[in-house]
Amino acid sequence: MPKPNPSRIRVNGGRLWDSIMRIAQIGPGAEGGSSRLALSDEDKQARDLFVAWCREADCRVTVDDMGNIFARREGCAPQLPPVLAGSHLDTQPHGGKFDGIYGVLAALEVVRALNDCGQETQAPLEIVVWTNEEGCRFAPAMLASGVFAGLFDKQFAWSRVDADGRSVRDELQRIDYFGDQSCGAHPIGALFEAHIEQGPILERDRDTIGVVTGAQGLRWYDIQVRGRDSHAGSTPMPGRRDALAAAAQLVLAVQDMARRHAPDAVGTVGELTVSPNSRNTIPGGADFTVDLRHPDDDTLAALDAALRKQCAEVAARCEVQVEVADIWHNPPLRFNPSCVDAVRAAAAHLQYRHQDMVSGAGHDACQVARIAPTAMIFVPCAGGVSHNEHESAEADDLEAGCNVLLHAMLETAGRA
Amino acid sequence: MPKPNPSRIRVNGGRLWDSIMRIAQIGPGAEGGSSRLALSDEDKQARDLFVAWCREADCRVTVDDMGNIFARREGCAPQLPPVLAGSHLDTQPHGGKFDGIYGVLAALEVVRALNDCGQETQAPLEIVVWTNEEGCRFAPAMLASGVFAGLFDKQFAWSRVDADGRSVRDELQRIDYFGDQSCGAHPIGALFEAHIEQGPILERDRDTIGVVTGAQGLRWYDIQVRGRDSHAGSTPMPGRRDALAAAAQLVLAVQDMARRHAPDAVGTVGELTVSPNSRNTIPGGADFTVDLRHPDDDTLAALDAALRKQCAEVAARCEVQVEVADIWHNPPLRFNPSCVDAVRAAAAHLQYRHQDMVSGAGHDACQVARIAPTAMIFVPCAGGVSHNEHESAEADDLEAGCNVLLHAMLETAGRA
Repeated sequence: MPKPNPSRIRVNGGRLWDSIMRIAQIGPGAEGGSSRLALSDEDKQARDLFVAWCREADCRVTVDDMGNIFARREGCAPQLPPVLAGSHLDTQPHGGKFDGIYGVLAALEVVRALNDCGQETQAPLEIVVWTNEEGCRFAPAMLASGVFAGLFDKQFAWSRVDADGRSVRDELQRIDYFGDQSCGAHPIGALFEAHIEQGPILERDRDTIGVVTGAQGLRWYDIQVRGRDSHAGSTPMPGRRDALAAAAQLVLAVQDMARRHAPDAVGTVGELTVSPNSRNTIPGGADFTVDLRHPDDDTLAALDAALRKQCAEVAARCEVQVEVADIWHNPPLRFNPSCVDAVRAAAAHLQYRHQDMVSGAGHDACQVARIAPTAMIFVPCAGGVSHNEHESAEADDLEAGCNVLLHAMLETAGRA
Repeated sequence: MPKPNPSRIRVNGGRLWDSIMRIAQIGPGAEGGSSRLALSDEDKQARDLFVAWCREADCRVTVDDMGNIFARREGCAPQLPPVLAGSHLDTQPHGGKFDGIYGVLAALEVVRALNDCGQETQAPLEIVVWTNEEGCRFAPAMLASGVFAGLFDKQFAWSRVDADGRSVRDELQRIDYFGDQSCGAHPIGALFEAHIEQGPILERDRDTIGVVTGAQGLRWYDIQVRGRDSHAGSTPMPGRRDALAAAAQLVLAVQDMARRHAPDAVGTVGELTVSPNSRNTIPGGADFTVDLRHPDDDTLAALDAALRKQCAEVAARCEVQVEVADIWHNPPLRFNPSCVDAVRAAAAHLQYRHQDMVSGAGHDACQVARIAPTAMIFVPCAGGVSHNEHESAEADDLEAGCNVLLHAMLETAGRA
């Protein structure tokens, strides 16, 4: 085989697409997506098939004691820490075919494409599968990448249980993915994760590649409004202490404060429950969640202050009690500049329309970024729809993202 | 016994209070109220005790085939249609001691007080207990008074079932209150119902008696908002189709439109449920109820038009679908002017502070008013709280309302 010109290497988009469709058949959803909860029988089937494919591609497979899988394509300089790429194979209960799976199979396709043309690298390349990214069977999400990055204690992670009381540790052993290696001990030089955007920006701007420079910071709150139940017919408007009317003002205040920090701020009330929730009773209680995100922590702090001010004002105006509980504060994240540059340079070299962007969602790469050089590559998904069986992406876009991944990895690992 | 001066007859407030407290012991609530669902064993116990008291007061008791109880104190002119007073003995699951029960026992106290002084009437007097006013075990509310007034079909009423599938007819037979008389055949000259206000107006204005001139008209709606579920982190604010943000605007619009028709209009969103109700998903669905009330049907029609206009505007502005379903339209009701005058004259004669008012809630008297001369007497309750174990009323106010009832009945039935 003649030595290839490394800059001309391309992945096989058809093979990538076929692999994605094959995995999607494991735990098929009723509406075209997949249902493959972490550490379920379906997850095991997908893992086994993935491992078989890796072995066919001459990779050596190791597993750690959080079930994370590492499939290694040896480098010319085996002593160098490996350049990893991957994501997760688990899905939401009514999940799509691409969220996570794409990142894993794009990394596999990189290995296959390099094998096809005999291109070697200095540092080894590794495909990684992280356990329980979705967090819907075992909370919290991004569990095993979090242990890997030292953000979660391993005993804590092992002891997480599902709704039936089965623990992560027991289920890892049951499906035979409780590995020898201690989670976090695996060497890592860098990590790339390709992923569908799960948002509408690339599609709207007709860009193919999102060069992900970091992840938004996030603040989560639980807010409790307490007024007074009273009769809807016999209680005049003045003097009502309507918890839902107060909560409605705060729902709109959250929208307003996000819009005031356009275009990067987002604010969402996703859950709201009313008490007693009876047609002819003025609600005495309303509980809701708030999710505020921004790429900059100072702006996030300003949003936090605005939320508390609004809560106090509404409490006074509506004669209700408003209690704000802080649930989570995840500061903004900047990916490694060299890794980000490698992604941007690959997109430019391949002449794909691209833009820098910040991830709105959390990903395994965001956990690992706390301890190793990391970056992400986004590709468009239809309508920004994700966590939904109707999640969809174009084969051409998936192929483009995979080509960017290949060249970013090649650049980072060094050509042999 | 010397012939009394009829205008000086007064009820025995202590005896009235003791009777109320005795009935409250049947199905005691954990927090001081009562739990006595319609046609339950507790309801039977309360009925049996009431019937025993009526017989001790020399009344003749008949029961109709909806379980309504009529206890008759004969008049000097037995051929005249009787003047009725009463209410209901059933409660909410966590109900109070006064809602309904007061009206029944105030009527009993009127009979006892007239017995005490030997005062006779031309028309007979009757104490009435209506079955299933609350509607919480068997929907709809005010069921048996509705059959009596011809508003509900008797077969429909008999076939209503509770959550365990037991029918009204079966339960009437089980507790031995399926009477011989056909519901609606009972003659009626007039009806008075004494009741706690279930609102805050009398207490606020320091009035003792509400002369109830009618009942508000009411419109009930179910409103469905449909947007699009999407990711809270990766979906920018512009382009969101947030069903809860749209619903929040409509919750506030309902408040605004009621305030614009102050002081008599009320508007309430009592129920609201969000879908998928997940912290980090922009809600694609929000369903809520609207309850609009006003004493005047033209104003109610204006409120109806305003609601539909707001729904259309919010749908366009928020890019969501808003569907409005009409659930119920109950037109405003005016009580019989002679009956209302009798109540007002009695309050004035007794020198109680009083005001004319419109009932915000529905009552058995509102059903019967469609077929017979009717009026109501309200007394204050603490904070306007009702349908709540903490419902409370002052013994002096209950006694005052009972004195007004006595003199209004005496005036209407005619002294012998």
